[in-house]
Amino acid sequence: MIDFNVTLRATYADTDQMGFVHHSNYLKYLEYARWETFRNFGLTYKEIEALGILMPVIDVKLRYLKPIYYDDLVTIKMQLDLMSPTKLSIDYELYNTAGEVIHIANTVLAFIKKTTKKPCRIPEFIEEALTEQVMSY
Amino acid sequence: MIDFNVTLRATYADTDQMGFVHHSNYLKYLEYARWETFRNFGLTYKEIEALGILMPVIDVKLRYLKPIYYDDLVTIKMQLDLMSPTKLSIDYELYNTAGEVIHIANTVLAFIKKTTKKPCRIPEFIEEALTEQVMSY
Amino acid sequence: MIDFNVTLRATYADTDQMGFVHHSNYLKYLEYARWETFRNFGLTYKEIEALGILMPVIDVKLRYLKPIYYDDLVTIKMQLDLMSPTKLSIDYELYNTAGEVIHIANTVLAFIKKTTKKPCRIPEFIEEALTEQVMSY
Amino acid sequence: MIDFNVTLRATYADTDQMGFVHHSNYLKYLEYARWETFRNFGLTYKEIEALGILMPVIDVKLRYLKPIYYDDLVTIKMQLDLMSPTKLSIDYELYNTAGEVIHIANTVLAFIKKTTKKPCRIPEFIEEALTEQVMSY
Repeated sequence: MIDFNVTLRATYADTDQMGFVHHSNYLKYLEYARWETFRNFGLTYKEIEALGILMPVIDVKLRYLKPIYYDDLVTIKMQLDLMSPTKLSIDYELYNTAGEVIHIANTVLAFIKKTTKKPCRIPEFIEEALTEQVMSY
Repeated sequence: MIDFNVTLRATYADTDQMGFVHHSNYLKYLEYARWETFRNFGLTYKEIEALGILMPVIDVKLRYLKPIYYDDLVTIKMQLDLMSPTKLSIDYELYNTAGEVIHIANTVLAFIKKTTKKPCRIPEFIEEALTEQVMSY
Repeated sequence: MIDFNVTLRATYADTDQMGFVHHSNYLKYLEYARWETFRNFGLTYKEIEALGILMPVIDVKLRYLKPIYYDDLVTIKMQLDLMSPTKLSIDYELYNTAGEVIHIANTVLAFIKKTTKKPCRIPEFIEEALTEQVMSY
Repeated sequence: MIDFNVTLRATYADTDQMGFVHHSNYLKYLEYARWETFRNFGLTYKEIEALGILMPVIDVKLRYLKPIYYDDLVTIKMQLDLMSPTKLSIDYELYNTAGEVIHIANTVLAFIKKTTKKPCRIPEFIEEALTEQVMSY
């Protein structure tokens, strides 16, 4: 199992009047982080969709430990786990620049066919790209 | 020319740390208001897309006069103007509950075919729905 | 324990190119639903903040069963549970107009003081408003 | 007058079911671009707020020439113009990787005091940071 890291910066539009990044925007950060990680594997999500596969999120768990503030640099560490032939689970830990864990998350993604919108087994081209990158069922 | 009114409430997620509704969310309010107005004409934007037409925004003008705060009720008054056979212009005035104008806007929408993504003349079923509802070229 | 219902409509801006409502927007729907429910109790979240209390989300669980499409009417059924003097847990079930459950969720909210940003016990004015409305610790 | 460039990538959450980046998200891109440019001047917007000044957007003009698609790299070229002692105007041109102009925009920002929320003259520390960077009134 290998760790992957992506760093991003919290924008002003992401904040709410509490003075923190709004809790819904964390899901956008996780999405950005996982597809940047796929890009590093040599497989973009854009290509996946072009090849007829969608990967919707079907399950989410989020724990907010410390707030993210405007302009913070956030590092997202990920572990991928192909938990079954039809589901990819991803664990996330978010760190601030002080090295503190500020958020823990898990998302589960399914594979579905773009034409039928029906679930399917992970396509070979994705499984190959993920080999050695993920824990496997 | 007839006026149309839609009222909505500013949500918490719409705010930013300035304590106002983030300026990008006004475009979401205008979008919501125009399609609710179409619904009142008996033609939803969902049906328009189902019939193969997209209506993307191609031009925007926004003037922010007073802030919108969380939980404010905002009334949006609209005037529609079919400025040419290929473009629909909409003027918006936003009012707070004190009756003050807090925002003035204009958006121009084009008609494009879903299949080709090419601009087209306004389809008859839309033109008919809009008749007597809009100023016309 | 009492159920509460709020109905909302999915907007165009909420969708993504998969053709569904983007998974991050569900958190905005839940937020809207819980504060509308509070409004029905006679206590708005705006008043809560004005009285010096913030209620950030500290834990989220989301299960996506069926997609939400543009222009869908979604009914959100809630149950509130004051699980401890410092945490409010809310269960959500989302229904489409066919009466099918399309999403299940839980959020946990903390009470913190606006001035210090430190967690605190639920203020009396909130506890009173919630009495008979929620399951209690 | 000097040009400034910022490049960003369109995320999945930014798209809508038309298959393009939703028109409201362009305002987030412009916001990101201008504050990254300020960072390059040695003055972050976070510092500006910490020093008691807010810079709300008071006027917007947007022209959409070609769509932005998911995962596109977009380069934003800016020109800043301190049009009066109380207003900063910024012109934007957005380019795709083929070098085509895909969007033209202008935003006007005011300076207001955080405590009073009243407009004020541009503070000296901002004017100094902008000197030689912007056209001036």
